[in-house]
Amino acid sequence: MIVAEQAMTIFSSLLDRYESVRSASMALAEPLSDEDCCVQSMPDASPIKWHLAHTSWFFETFILEKFEANFKPFHPAFRMLFNSYYNGVGARHPRARRGLITRPSLAEVEDYRSQVDARMEALLLIAAAPTYIPSPELEQLITLGLNHEEQHQELMLTDVLHLLSNNPLYPAYTERRMEPAASAHALQWVAVPEGIVEIGHAGGGFCFDNELPRHRHYVEPFELASRLVSNAEYLAFVKAGAYDDPSLWLAEGWDWLQANNISHPLYWHRSKDSWYEFTLNGLVELDGERAARHVSFFEADAYARWSGARLPTEAEWECAASRQAALSGEAGQAGSVRLTQLLDTGWQWTCSSYAAYPGFQPAAGAVGEYNGKFMVNQYVLRGGSCATPPGHSRLSYRNFFPSHARWQFSAIRLARSAA
Amino acid sequence: MIVAEQAMTIFSSLLDRYESVRSASMALAEPLSDEDCCVQSMPDASPIKWHLAHTSWFFETFILEKFEANFKPFHPAFRMLFNSYYNGVGARHPRARRGLITRPSLAEVEDYRSQVDARMEALLLIAAAPTYIPSPELEQLITLGLNHEEQHQELMLTDVLHLLSNNPLYPAYTERRMEPAASAHALQWVAVPEGIVEIGHAGGGFCFDNELPRHRHYVEPFELASRLVSNAEYLAFVKAGAYDDPSLWLAEGWDWLQANNISHPLYWHRSKDSWYEFTLNGLVELDGERAARHVSFFEADAYARWSGARLPTEAEWECAASRQAALSGEAGQAGSVRLTQLLDTGWQWTCSSYAAYPGFQPAAGAVGEYNGKFMVNQYVLRGGSCATPPGHSRLSYRNFFPSHARWQFSAIRLARSAA
Amino acid sequence: MIVAEQAMTIFSSLLDRYESVRSASMALAEPLSDEDCCVQSMPDASPIKWHLAHTSWFFETFILEKFEANFKPFHPAFRMLFNSYYNGVGARHPRARRGLITRPSLAEVEDYRSQVDARMEALLLIAAAPTYIPSPELEQLITLGLNHEEQHQELMLTDVLHLLSNNPLYPAYTERRMEPAASAHALQWVAVPEGIVEIGHAGGGFCFDNELPRHRHYVEPFELASRLVSNAEYLAFVKAGAYDDPSLWLAEGWDWLQANNISHPLYWHRSKDSWYEFTLNGLVELDGERAARHVSFFEADAYARWSGARLPTEAEWECAASRQAALSGEAGQAGSVRLTQLLDTGWQWTCSSYAAYPGFQPAAGAVGEYNGKFMVNQYVLRGGSCATPPGHSRLSYRNFFPSHARWQFSAIRLARSAA
Amino acid sequence: MIVAEQAMTIFSSLLDRYESVRSASMALAEPLSDEDCCVQSMPDASPIKWHLAHTSWFFETFILEKFEANFKPFHPAFRMLFNSYYNGVGARHPRARRGLITRPSLAEVEDYRSQVDARMEALLLIAAAPTYIPSPELEQLITLGLNHEEQHQELMLTDVLHLLSNNPLYPAYTERRMEPAASAHALQWVAVPEGIVEIGHAGGGFCFDNELPRHRHYVEPFELASRLVSNAEYLAFVKAGAYDDPSLWLAEGWDWLQANNISHPLYWHRSKDSWYEFTLNGLVELDGERAARHVSFFEADAYARWSGARLPTEAEWECAASRQAALSGEAGQAGSVRLTQLLDTGWQWTCSSYAAYPGFQPAAGAVGEYNGKFMVNQYVLRGGSCATPPGHSRLSYRNFFPSHARWQFSAIRLARSAA
Repeated sequence: MIVAEQAMTIFSSLLDRYESVRSASMALAEPLSDEDCCVQSMPDASPIKWHLAHTSWFFETFILEKFEANFKPFHPAFRMLFNSYYNGVGARHPRARRGLITRPSLAEVEDYRSQVDARMEALLLIAAAPTYIPSPELEQLITLGLNHEEQHQELMLTDVLHLLSNNPLYPAYTERRMEPAASAHALQWVAVPEGIVEIGHAGGGFCFDNELPRHRHYVEPFELASRLVSNAEYLAFVKAGAYDDPSLWLAEGWDWLQANNISHPLYWHRSKDSWYEFTLNGLVELDGERAARHVSFFEADAYARWSGARLPTEAEWECAASRQAALSGEAGQAGSVRLTQLLDTGWQWTCSSYAAYPGFQPAAGAVGEYNGKFMVNQYVLRGGSCATPPGHSRLSYRNFFPSHARWQFSAIRLARSAA
Repeated sequence: MIVAEQAMTIFSSLLDRYESVRSASMALAEPLSDEDCCVQSMPDASPIKWHLAHTSWFFETFILEKFEANFKPFHPAFRMLFNSYYNGVGARHPRARRGLITRPSLAEVEDYRSQVDARMEALLLIAAAPTYIPSPELEQLITLGLNHEEQHQELMLTDVLHLLSNNPLYPAYTERRMEPAASAHALQWVAVPEGIVEIGHAGGGFCFDNELPRHRHYVEPFELASRLVSNAEYLAFVKAGAYDDPSLWLAEGWDWLQANNISHPLYWHRSKDSWYEFTLNGLVELDGERAARHVSFFEADAYARWSGARLPTEAEWECAASRQAALSGEAGQAGSVRLTQLLDTGWQWTCSSYAAYPGFQPAAGAVGEYNGKFMVNQYVLRGGSCATPPGHSRLSYRNFFPSHARWQFSAIRLARSAA
Repeated sequence: MIVAEQAMTIFSSLLDRYESVRSASMALAEPLSDEDCCVQSMPDASPIKWHLAHTSWFFETFILEKFEANFKPFHPAFRMLFNSYYNGVGARHPRARRGLITRPSLAEVEDYRSQVDARMEALLLIAAAPTYIPSPELEQLITLGLNHEEQHQELMLTDVLHLLSNNPLYPAYTERRMEPAASAHALQWVAVPEGIVEIGHAGGGFCFDNELPRHRHYVEPFELASRLVSNAEYLAFVKAGAYDDPSLWLAEGWDWLQANNISHPLYWHRSKDSWYEFTLNGLVELDGERAARHVSFFEADAYARWSGARLPTEAEWECAASRQAALSGEAGQAGSVRLTQLLDTGWQWTCSSYAAYPGFQPAAGAVGEYNGKFMVNQYVLRGGSCATPPGHSRLSYRNFFPSHARWQFSAIRLARSAA
Repeated sequence: MIVAEQAMTIFSSLLDRYESVRSASMALAEPLSDEDCCVQSMPDASPIKWHLAHTSWFFETFILEKFEANFKPFHPAFRMLFNSYYNGVGARHPRARRGLITRPSLAEVEDYRSQVDARMEALLLIAAAPTYIPSPELEQLITLGLNHEEQHQELMLTDVLHLLSNNPLYPAYTERRMEPAASAHALQWVAVPEGIVEIGHAGGGFCFDNELPRHRHYVEPFELASRLVSNAEYLAFVKAGAYDDPSLWLAEGWDWLQANNISHPLYWHRSKDSWYEFTLNGLVELDGERAARHVSFFEADAYARWSGARLPTEAEWECAASRQAALSGEAGQAGSVRLTQLLDTGWQWTCSSYAAYPGFQPAAGAVGEYNGKFMVNQYVLRGGSCATPPGHSRLSYRNFFPSHARWQFSAIRLARSAA
């Protein structure tokens, strides 16, 4: 139950956030042509135009359809065309065929966005009016819609990077620098003692359903690496012949290497003795000080084995990161070893299969399909990447991809059991 | 050896034709957006932008590179990027990935066309100059290039039709009527007596190498249908349960039906008891008087078997059509049965596998890859379609596609052996 | 370090066990013809002849090669031919082609077994001699080899069941009754309180490396079903339309249903209104009181969701089962609810992805490939089945299969979180 | 209408032939074990046991079922189980799963053969009785059945060769020499003048429906090679780098090479600088004087192109071979160039796609499926091979396989157009 004054504050700030998130999506599409925005480079990746439409579809279908008086869809076919995977909403256009939709055009999708925005803003203004008491569900759904759109903002970057990587001309997405400066300090280990810890989202603020419920977990003593594995370190692994040595790989990973003829991270290129990396800024020389990224779970696992370490569990990752956050508040932290590159460089593969937390309950209705139905045959990644919108991720955040996926900014943070 | 005056005439008229053919390609792209021109709907079909670039590549690679003083390519990577299948030219971008090339943009490809046109026109002006004696090869290659471009004009229409057919909104390529009026007269049979006939291109004018050499062939007496099988006739075949009766089909055709769940021509749609057809003008009610098209060789063969007839050989087709052409010149043809819909409605499947004529010699060099290397596991279609540029086809013309291909305007003309 | 007297006892009893296990494998092949033993019905399943040879290969390669004086292989090619997946041993015949090996014949493989047995028995007699002090590794490897062979005994039955299920004549493996009598009592729930529990093999006796190290785990309070889901219960799920309702399924499971046209457990057959099940005794009427088996993880998960429960974690399963075992020793257990069908009916899918226990270390050398390299994209099953050799399984035993596998005797035991 | 005396003679000799053909099939299986006879090495090849059963099925289904009083099938399921491809007979067991049928056993299939033989012999004795006037159809069907069985005798050898070739132990089918002595004389050219020739079966004796009707054909002047291309000649082609030169190949052939990693004929093996060939006698050193075999149409075509020749049309082949046969009867043939290796060494690829002869009519009923429905996307081979039963083939015989097929004894005879 939200009282009127709270509602005013909540919905006013939600309106600000709505406008900011929605315009950020458009800004990401700004360097791209209509053609760049239309094409789909593989079934896992979606066209930019589809992302722009689908995120609007989310607001139209889950919010406007329910809360708008006299709801009338922008286009009756869009309900099917831009449904991603919600069986509860009805039929959907097949994922692998999203790139065949040359019409509606990008301009029409921008019109769609504008209309949805106008209607959403009207709804938010009413909700923020002093005499109005909106339903808590409205706030929750809008917040979910904005977090959903931020997830798609990251996907827009990973998907367009994949598209451009398929072009033998190696075009850049932008000339603007997309990452913080590189700096690989000497790797140190952050020790965490054994004990029962609490895992999962705590306190206020938004989280996805898969971060709940917060629950207890027993961890053995362990250590977590202070930074991600660097390109230089990963290159040593490549040069050591690791991609030709089955003893370093999970059996399924080894088969995957052979079947796909894989010998290095996804966007690496070798030209004689030099190594290059395709990035959002085009093809650049491989920078040994940057974090190695675009590796699969199989590669992360093999690297860890080769280096005498292992991947952390997601509980270990969250426990160590939360501990640092808690301690940071206290005085006298100078000199202690710190975990860096937690949220802004690359998602960090854990050895935890993506599964429900004890007591997990998906939301009722179609939005309940958001997370739960994907909890099989995927591995959890923690942290965030250079493509994650600032403020979007948090320490309890659970990203997840299949063990062979590489087109995300996926990286490696090592762990080891305490001696 | 071309003497100067002839050359003037030849190259002046070639210049006119060059400009006309090249602008016709651009006109075909006119109703389409950048997005429409970029996307590839299946490996067999190419993006419009690729067609526009590749036809320019043909002139640049086979003519400018050889005849232009101080040749410098428009872009060094285009040689690979827009090579279709000429191993003699070197590497090529894989066919199935043509649709991933969002850059160069459509505008850049139009610049490429303009520059190639300017350089080709300069070459043609020099060749047409009174004091200049150009090589006969130049004329032959330009003529080949123009006929090549006309083939791609037809493919532009069939490929964009396929692309749009994958859009659940059923968008039209154009509102402009793309076909002559329908009119299915009562089917009659044109009888041809047995004898040795000559097959292959004769007389002057251009032809492709696969139409040569003209050679003798013995034909048994036969009859050829006066028109193509109509939609109404083909619908009767569908309604008779033909797609469920293996006895009507070639074994491989039957397997193909089952594997692809096929029960009607490619662009037909059923909604309750009504039938529709997706066309360049969008989704329209099936017109029983029009010719049935977008059928595979398997379907054409099965229809012929069901109707108690058969498909003609390509020699029968050419012999009957040439005979009519020859007789037409003579007096007193009134009242006789005529072959209609020869060149302007739909390509007509023959039962002839695509093979070399006796004594066939492909041209030397990379252009020799034009036709010969495809002479296996394809069937010959004769005639022409509503998408064929006027004047492009002729009675000796040999089109060819695999037995399962349906995205061309492929139709059925029946034959039967004389009683 | 084993002292001589201990060694005498250990190796004498090992010799008995060796003879008993080895002859049990031959007994399983007894009802089968040479043809039955040669054919491979899918890449996941192996021919019986291959199982008979590979289990001998294990002793020859890992034990005789190391411990036998003047080792000479039975046949030099067998090292490659019957290597299953040990990269450390060298090349191997591809798994999917095991069924093409018609030679060596079954009789030759029986000769191979006999020779290996004679050599192993000689080795064991020497080891059991009073004056001899054998290495502990020898005992460990023989014990591993016998447990390995018992695993293959179960696979012989599941693989031959799959082979015979592909025969439209529905032949029986045997007339001998292969299962205990059916009896589905009313399902009850066994409650387990929260707390830190120890998981993993404890005490003496053999275990596989993946059951170690024993370690602590925190469990929330939960309840485990007293028996497996019965055929009658699963049939209700089928009849309720569950296979047509995407809301019950994991997304990947739903796609798997569609792609493979699945609507019931693997060996069920419907004929009008009657249901049958193909078993080792041939096709029999579906017995509602027996446990439903040959279901995938996807089906187990969907059934649990439909019934308002969930699958247990492997820690929950082991904790509840161990607790019952411990309490059983105590007095006054009359009247309490008991877990039945733990080890002798069907392997029970857990919701735990197969992963290393904290501190897991695979053995050195090629035998280290036994378990660790399969710890990805598989789910743990606990318990045992009617095909498991008596005494082979135990409460800490971890079986594992991919989420779509169904040819094992895989069953469902429900769990639920405590209210 | 057969009068009684003729019938006596006809059916008496048919009985002899029946017994001879049927026992020849059993003789082919004699060197093989039950396991050898059960396994299927690829969908194109069938198990020996299946061949033995299917050829009996042919007599039971097409003859006994029609002509036997009180027909009762040996086993009701065999009608489906051993139906190869006759839709007119009803359901059939899928081709690719023939190898999964371990039951009925080989012994049971031999019983099936014996019973069918006894019933067929009874039928033949009645038909040969002086007072009985049998239907001409009976004679025709039995003759068809025997020729059908002879075709399967060849397939038994090609299929078992393929099976054994998949065994890394290289086992021999038999020690008995399976081929005539090698002898590659210097290649000469047999010239044939232009003209209208008659093609197709003529005169008395059995032929398959696809050899009819005999019809006229115009041939240009051409020359045909006196012998097949030898292993030594083909090895020169391999060593010249032909498998790496796309200009020698049909486009589809080149793609097939790349996709399947092909660099020599199917059963060739290279070990350092020596070449071996897997044969029915096991692995032997490549004999340069023998004919190159187990090549695809693509390879035959590429070899011909490389050598400056081409493949003959089937009309050319038949015309040249018939001409020699006709002239051989005349006096004074000494000294002239002769075509050798026509029928006993290897089937000879022609460049003719397999198609109906003008006026071709398949037989009524299910036996009409024998040939006609395969007339698409296959190429005709003429002659016969070392695996063809003596007397089975003839100059008008039309064998046919897809362009990539290699497991038959397929060879190359060159042709060239007259200068």
